[in-house]
Amino acid sequence: MASLIDRSNLDFLLNRWLKVDELLARPSFAMHDLAEVSAYLDLAEELAGDKFLTHYKLADQIEPTLTEEGVEVLPQIKRALEQFAAAGFFSAPFPETYGGLQFPELVQAAGLGLFMAANLATSAYAMLTIANARLLVAHGSPAQAEAFARPQIEGRVLGTMCLSEPQAGSSLGDIRTRAEPDGDSIYGPQYRITGNKMWISGGDQNISENIFHLVLAKIPETDGCLPEGTKGISLFIVPKFILAEDGSPGIRNDVDVAGINHKMGYRGTSNCLLNFGEGTRFRPGGRAGAVGYLVGEPGAGLAIMFHMMNEARINVGLGAASVACRAHLLSVAYSQERMQGRLERNNNPVPLIAHPDVRRMLLAQKCYAEGALSLILYAARLVDDRETAETDEERAEADLLLGLLTPAAKTWASEWGLAANDIAIQIHGGYGYTRDFDVEQLYRDNRLNPIHEGTTGIQGIDFVGRKIQKDGGAALITLGKRIRSTCISAAAADERLRNHAADLEAVWDEFVSLAQGYQDVGRDVMLSNATELLQAFGHLVVGWLWLDQALVTSTTKSPLQETKVACCDFYFQTEMPRVTNALHHLAHRSPLPATVPLGVFGVEQ
Amino acid sequence: MASLIDRSNLDFLLNRWLKVDELLARPSFAMHDLAEVSAYLDLAEELAGDKFLTHYKLADQIEPTLTEEGVEVLPQIKRALEQFAAAGFFSAPFPETYGGLQFPELVQAAGLGLFMAANLATSAYAMLTIANARLLVAHGSPAQAEAFARPQIEGRVLGTMCLSEPQAGSSLGDIRTRAEPDGDSIYGPQYRITGNKMWISGGDQNISENIFHLVLAKIPETDGCLPEGTKGISLFIVPKFILAEDGSPGIRNDVDVAGINHKMGYRGTSNCLLNFGEGTRFRPGGRAGAVGYLVGEPGAGLAIMFHMMNEARINVGLGAASVACRAHLLSVAYSQERMQGRLERNNNPVPLIAHPDVRRMLLAQKCYAEGALSLILYAARLVDDRETAETDEERAEADLLLGLLTPAAKTWASEWGLAANDIAIQIHGGYGYTRDFDVEQLYRDNRLNPIHEGTTGIQGIDFVGRKIQKDGGAALITLGKRIRSTCISAAAADERLRNHAADLEAVWDEFVSLAQGYQDVGRDVMLSNATELLQAFGHLVVGWLWLDQALVTSTTKSPLQETKVACCDFYFQTEMPRVTNALHHLAHRSPLPATVPLGVFGVEQ
Repeated sequence: MASLIDRSNLDFLLNRWLKVDELLARPSFAMHDLAEVSAYLDLAEELAGDKFLTHYKLADQIEPTLTEEGVEVLPQIKRALEQFAAAGFFSAPFPETYGGLQFPELVQAAGLGLFMAANLATSAYAMLTIANARLLVAHGSPAQAEAFARPQIEGRVLGTMCLSEPQAGSSLGDIRTRAEPDGDSIYGPQYRITGNKMWISGGDQNISENIFHLVLAKIPETDGCLPEGTKGISLFIVPKFILAEDGSPGIRNDVDVAGINHKMGYRGTSNCLLNFGEGTRFRPGGRAGAVGYLVGEPGAGLAIMFHMMNEARINVGLGAASVACRAHLLSVAYSQERMQGRLERNNNPVPLIAHPDVRRMLLAQKCYAEGALSLILYAARLVDDRETAETDEERAEADLLLGLLTPAAKTWASEWGLAANDIAIQIHGGYGYTRDFDVEQLYRDNRLNPIHEGTTGIQGIDFVGRKIQKDGGAALITLGKRIRSTCISAAAADERLRNHAADLEAVWDEFVSLAQGYQDVGRDVMLSNATELLQAFGHLVVGWLWLDQALVTSTTKSPLQETKVACCDFYFQTEMPRVTNALHHLAHRSPLPATVPLGVFGVEQ
Repeated sequence: MASLIDRSNLDFLLNRWLKVDELLARPSFAMHDLAEVSAYLDLAEELAGDKFLTHYKLADQIEPTLTEEGVEVLPQIKRALEQFAAAGFFSAPFPETYGGLQFPELVQAAGLGLFMAANLATSAYAMLTIANARLLVAHGSPAQAEAFARPQIEGRVLGTMCLSEPQAGSSLGDIRTRAEPDGDSIYGPQYRITGNKMWISGGDQNISENIFHLVLAKIPETDGCLPEGTKGISLFIVPKFILAEDGSPGIRNDVDVAGINHKMGYRGTSNCLLNFGEGTRFRPGGRAGAVGYLVGEPGAGLAIMFHMMNEARINVGLGAASVACRAHLLSVAYSQERMQGRLERNNNPVPLIAHPDVRRMLLAQKCYAEGALSLILYAARLVDDRETAETDEERAEADLLLGLLTPAAKTWASEWGLAANDIAIQIHGGYGYTRDFDVEQLYRDNRLNPIHEGTTGIQGIDFVGRKIQKDGGAALITLGKRIRSTCISAAAADERLRNHAADLEAVWDEFVSLAQGYQDVGRDVMLSNATELLQAFGHLVVGWLWLDQALVTSTTKSPLQETKVACCDFYFQTEMPRVTNALHHLAHRSPLPATVPLGVFGVEQ
């Protein structure tokens, strides 16, 4: 099989570290056993290697094109997603009542990660569709879930999320898309939508029979003006083809593709500017306005969309981690094959991997790639706990931790996964800079991840402005207990892990005290340092996860134990000092970025 | 004019900081005055904007192609280089005896930087040609210099450097290209060259009437075997067309293009695999073997080539810095134009630059881009001092410092210039990820720089294994004197600069003591930490240069002074702690990368 993500590590993470067996003991997942989980991952690995990886480079070379008929993508993408649907992967996380396989999120994430490692752009269609359908199952009416979630769960229809507009990227309060009431329908209150949506992944394609857009728009107030800010945002389902009575695609809705974006990477996923309601080509019912159906209450759109967004953020991290993991395996393979240089004069050439500097890069890369993967799977486990843990307390705790960890999971995996991809190019040398080697494209694909679904800067503000302050800092206290529990166990292990535990505990205490102090530093200092605070947090948390993994393996001497302890040693030697360094800087509470005069950038004031 | 590099800063660096007037007072440059320097840069800026920038994107979209006739590049590249030649830019650093303008290296570097900012790939042809001709002027015989340097100085012929082979990238001792004696010629001893050269930038093109390759090859020993290691390497001039009696292109030499590399960026520069001496298409004198002329003594090839390589390394840094500077200007402009988000609830949208996190990114980017530029121009000034300083001592000191700073200049500018380009994408958000914006391409162009002309890892070994140890660490002592001199002056300035000076002096002392300790740590520890030691050194040196610049401006209150002091503050707040952090880690003298078992990477041992 193709090497996508080190399967033995993935099995370790699920089985030994995150104890998927405990999940399978819960009533929600009792229909599955460990053998089924393993078979599910086997199938994912096989399909990813045979159907997704095989058009990886081609989909980069032959981008989606815009024709009179709409966006056309590489036929191989369609065929891959058909196989993905036929094997039931769209349905994996859904309840049996929707025809789903009802697998834990942890298992679903591990499976999706294998597809993302093989081909991030093709997987993105599936990722968005699953998130779209989950939102509808959770927040749509029964009629909406039946009509719009089920075809996506079956993989017949693909879904999108339409948030940004040309003038409103991160700032969703400024969206101008308008939804005018248009009577009632069997799917609930009907509206006519007018506006332009930018950066819509999968916004149009010739893969699926229909496309279901989840669209943020504002319902005008009585004076005809749109409400200001994020509170006036509502959510609508807008199908590309209005459903016929039997649910099949009927007449064309007033949604048109105004253009496609030509990206650095991630090219297989079409990315569109969509016009809603212009009425130039499609006029349902004889007039302009895209027909849409309100999901949830008016004004609740952003809150509901965050259900999808939070999942999408973790999935962005999953993609970044998966792509980094494949780059790491490619780097290990290349550094074994490529003979270059000598260690002693007049000896024979040695493989790259014999050089200490190359091993240093491989160690860092492994710590980043597999560290990111562990962080994401840990978050996926929290999703399961939030939904299915036995007691209310456990569910509430999982929810609290997930809220705290989501911006870190998205950001850390994106930023350091990308660093792992950068190292892959460096290890490949000149060859890695050519398009003949996958590592070049993997870097370009991954570069999107620190940008979409909330840039790193946006995540920083979410983390510092909301997450660490919520409920008087309850999330940090809860996480602290888990970290301390690892440290206590590590103190009973060997000397190396004991030392790492002592380091971790000290850095954690310093972080908490610093983060608490940041709750009343004022806007300038907070906004000047939010990103670095989040980055330090992410780096610290991943250190904890490495120690925790090393600890799980420490009972028996094995190659796996050697691996985990070496990575843990490296991480605590070279990576944890970055956290200390950041904390020292953050302790200054410098407002410099907020207060620097614009003249410094040559800008007239 | 197009914004390529902030001209007011460039003028400051040359005029006030690096005192170009002192250079113009030397006999070598006495024919020039400051007005001429300024006019030279004006012309460079104009030509770069009008002729180089204008095909920047097109040359990325339409790559060089290989046809039956050879490599064809975009016609605009040829026209740009013809204008570059006509305006005398090829000849800028050459003595008047060769028809050169005889400008200081500092001025030549500043001018070339403007072209590189506009179009790195088109400038690369010029950069390589100038370096090639300089090598010939310095090391070729008078006949060789006349025949092969002069046409390059005139810009009629372009030059290359042919070092790497498919199996020998960084490890030049392993080259297999063979040079068999073939009698004598008017250009000195003639040889027939056979072998394959990889990664040859400008290796073929349809720009110039001829191409002069500088080729490393080995002369077989009496038993017919090639000598082992780097000491057996000799250097040859191999023209694409053998010169007719009047020096014009004559019959085709036995040099053929076997393929071209398709790169991530830097695409306008053709990059070729060249076959020498296969005799399949071209057979000069009726037989296979590329005709070449020995430069210097047999076996001295690598030492001579390092004349070109060291210059090329600084020029790689110059390119990286220049590309980063343009990305910074584009980021400043975009962050003023793009309205997004609010600072207070219900206010109007503000430009991106109003957000503290964006300013933080702009500050970091400016510190990296302009810090790299100052480091490179400082090195260029050392080249001038090495060649034209009044006393032998001053020349020797410049040579010593230049040797120490070259790996740092190449590496720091490449790595952190690239970081500045990465920030530019992030500031542009989704737009920065599209090919509609130059920042996307600027990143891809710059990604080559940490790889070619010696990877970062190779530079680390050069720095730790050779440069800091040479003459008992004399270079560090000399540099330390200059750093201390800045600190003493800063101590007499205001409190902020005084504090920075105290920090700098402490970190420098710690670095020197640590670097001295690394001279007898053994191979494993040295090779495991060489890259980080070099990176810490580079980061420290740039901190010194920021302080030194702030100091130069500190006598009068001005916008420039505010800029330099703000950057200096930011650098000492957020960047110098990275050095401290690295030094703490380096103090452990960890051999982990060298000693980590390969099983950790899943490699069977």
